[in-house]
Amino acid sequence: MDKQSPKAHIARAIESAKALLGDRLSTAQVVRDHHGKDLTWNEGAAPDAVAFVQSTNEVQQLVQICAAEKCPVIPYGTGTSLEGHFTAIHGGICIDLSGMNEILEVNAADMDARVQAGVTRKQLNVALRDQGLMFPIDPGADASIGGMASTRASGTNAVRYGTMRENVMGLTVVLADGRVIKTGTRARKSSAGYDLTRLFVGAEGTLGVITEVQLKLHGIPEAMSAGICAFPSVEDCCNTTIEAIQSGIPLARIELVDDEHIKAINAYSKLTMPVAQTLFVEFHGTPAGVAEQSQRFAEIAAANGGGVIDFVTKEEDRLKLWQARHDAFWATKAWRQGTQEAFSTDVCVPISRLAECVEATRKDLVAHNLYGPIIGHVGDGNFHVAMFCNPSDVDEVKRVKMVYGRLIDRALAMGGTCTGEHGIGAGKRAYLEKEHGEGVWVMRAIKLALDPFNLMNPGKNAGP
Amino acid sequence: MDKQSPKAHIARAIESAKALLGDRLSTAQVVRDHHGKDLTWNEGAAPDAVAFVQSTNEVQQLVQICAAEKCPVIPYGTGTSLEGHFTAIHGGICIDLSGMNEILEVNAADMDARVQAGVTRKQLNVALRDQGLMFPIDPGADASIGGMASTRASGTNAVRYGTMRENVMGLTVVLADGRVIKTGTRARKSSAGYDLTRLFVGAEGTLGVITEVQLKLHGIPEAMSAGICAFPSVEDCCNTTIEAIQSGIPLARIELVDDEHIKAINAYSKLTMPVAQTLFVEFHGTPAGVAEQSQRFAEIAAANGGGVIDFVTKEEDRLKLWQARHDAFWATKAWRQGTQEAFSTDVCVPISRLAECVEATRKDLVAHNLYGPIIGHVGDGNFHVAMFCNPSDVDEVKRVKMVYGRLIDRALAMGGTCTGEHGIGAGKRAYLEKEHGEGVWVMRAIKLALDPFNLMNPGKNAGP
Repeated sequence: MDKQSPKAHIARAIESAKALLGDRLSTAQVVRDHHGKDLTWNEGAAPDAVAFVQSTNEVQQLVQICAAEKCPVIPYGTGTSLEGHFTAIHGGICIDLSGMNEILEVNAADMDARVQAGVTRKQLNVALRDQGLMFPIDPGADASIGGMASTRASGTNAVRYGTMRENVMGLTVVLADGRVIKTGTRARKSSAGYDLTRLFVGAEGTLGVITEVQLKLHGIPEAMSAGICAFPSVEDCCNTTIEAIQSGIPLARIELVDDEHIKAINAYSKLTMPVAQTLFVEFHGTPAGVAEQSQRFAEIAAANGGGVIDFVTKEEDRLKLWQARHDAFWATKAWRQGTQEAFSTDVCVPISRLAECVEATRKDLVAHNLYGPIIGHVGDGNFHVAMFCNPSDVDEVKRVKMVYGRLIDRALAMGGTCTGEHGIGAGKRAYLEKEHGEGVWVMRAIKLALDPFNLMNPGKNAGP
Repeated sequence: MDKQSPKAHIARAIESAKALLGDRLSTAQVVRDHHGKDLTWNEGAAPDAVAFVQSTNEVQQLVQICAAEKCPVIPYGTGTSLEGHFTAIHGGICIDLSGMNEILEVNAADMDARVQAGVTRKQLNVALRDQGLMFPIDPGADASIGGMASTRASGTNAVRYGTMRENVMGLTVVLADGRVIKTGTRARKSSAGYDLTRLFVGAEGTLGVITEVQLKLHGIPEAMSAGICAFPSVEDCCNTTIEAIQSGIPLARIELVDDEHIKAINAYSKLTMPVAQTLFVEFHGTPAGVAEQSQRFAEIAAANGGGVIDFVTKEEDRLKLWQARHDAFWATKAWRQGTQEAFSTDVCVPISRLAECVEATRKDLVAHNLYGPIIGHVGDGNFHVAMFCNPSDVDEVKRVKMVYGRLIDRALAMGGTCTGEHGIGAGKRAYLEKEHGEGVWVMRAIKLALDPFNLMNPGKNAGP
């Protein structure tokens, strides 16, 4: 047995890292604190140092140093995690990849790109625009592509374009022992070997550090049409969505925004939307195509009690419409002024059970006197609840936790998942086994095989 | 060390299996031979026994018996592998899952289904038709869904609907130690834990036996339009495809059929298609949508030297058109009469390199006096070469192997993969490391962690 304490090992790793990176290795308290706490309730824990890396080679050397000293390694992108993904539970060195922000190549003919992990989605889309290309995955925040890959992120466009699972073609990953592998190829499909790309996508840095990502791109649609439609109930919203999908309408976005949100958005953005369960929709295609889709959707919506939809096709009108949707969280935060914080979570269920799941959750919120507006990527059966609560109110916190646990149990009982897009991180580990049973044993066996000393983002996802 | 020979262990496993399954455990030579040799050149090896199972529970008990006796386990669906996936290299018990052919549930509202592994794709589509649903993955043969999941199969529709990677939502898998896990959920997306579903999809039975599959379904399109277009060159075909994809036309199918195939198909199916590099295309959508897509495609094709396209929309005409495509292999076999066999392989490259890859391969075939017609899922950059050859002609076999090896090296050098859809099996193991480098170490570590005694389909894919 090694007689030195973990802290002595970490200190030695930091010393070596300092020799490697100089000023780009920081132990300043403010930097460490900034890299140890996300925007949520999850209790933070600062790393012992933060390394601002510039290349895969530097990450490799850093991981080799950490492997030699058994020092934990925590990757960090833009810090927009909602489940404490980068909390340094056991201390260690945080690898900040935001400086690796180079777009390495864009292949217009193949509609793919290779980027360093620190490139953000907005940065990429600005760079692609002139070539008529886009990268559609939008998890709200301007997250880094590496972080989005690590958490298997998605967002409003997933119903049409898929999630990071479908849009990552390959990765460069630094493994726990410092080896560097390249997964995938530039081919659109392959039957060659185990799907390592999909293994690292969603592993939340517990199996290695992603340093480069090969991405599928999509053409910017020739035409887009968006609209807002008020409904009598959540069930009507869901039935409309189901029928639209079944009838083959290629929905680009379909968002459920509940009446609590509409109230708050109206106040925040000075709008006059009817206070009702509401769908925000968008169609992509040719001008004739989106006109036909819009009309067909409007017919289905009307048959389900939906109001008249005023479709907009001009860029500025569309952006304004989606701005209201994207402001939803800030609008509810403003609506509930004071010391309250939001406890934000998400689940995903089969779409046939979505209305029932949302309604039962709404009832539970009311029964426990909680303000918890709901917003959802309804085409995927995925919804978010932001439960507002005063962290110092012990009873309110208790009620939030109860409703939260019941929400997840409800989603699982309906054949759903405990998180559609936020991830497991440090916050949802208790639910992983509930969802996957013995499958978690398989995940742990893989973790142990690839990271026997549990140095890669320890205490997260399926890792010990 | 255990002093008994592997054969004694296998014999004991067979004895226990016999006690479990009675008549459904066969050691008849004809049954064993049938389960040990596929339709290709790969050298076959018969298993010591074949178990005709009827439930996950039986598979579990069988695997437990085999685990106790260290007896290899080889899963078998319909036997349509093209890479020796079920060759019993080290003997053992073949688990024939074709009797597990129950469609367990179809959820029309969610457009998903759960099937036993032995259900075939045609069986499933017949069952779905009345509900306006379809399962679009079509690897040519009427393969079992379990086999298709295991080999990450695809086919002509992949450009629009994806491969098994995108269309499997979850699995029931019997692991090497007899544990049963259920991966995935009925939710369309999830960020909960490692993506075990994608790990088993494409693992070719080396990590466990798939017994049930949860599938995404799709609506049968309201309208379909298909057509055939002759081009001056492969490059013109590829440029047409690239431009069509870039302009946002949602191609449902786009197949490159080379002039050698056209000659053979004309003779075989009594048709008079112009002998040229040819694209077979299909569009799915609303009547107005497919009309618009067809017209736009025709414009792009014409600008690239393509001939006039006579689009057909009636079911019978469409089926006739695709029958000609599906007869391609048999047509070339008939064209080259005699004792010749076909050595069939596939690679996949970025679409921008496809014309170059196909042309270089055609030149190589001519230079070595080989008949090797080419057919491709051009929208994915995936193509097949069927090299006809007399197995007893030593020199011809040598030339086939040379051209084959160079084809794969060429695909890898272009950023492609050694197989787009056939898989690794026993046949392409040498190329796995060439393609994935150190990544194969990760695959082997996973294999060892989940199957430490190498009992699950040994000698295939990334396993030892």
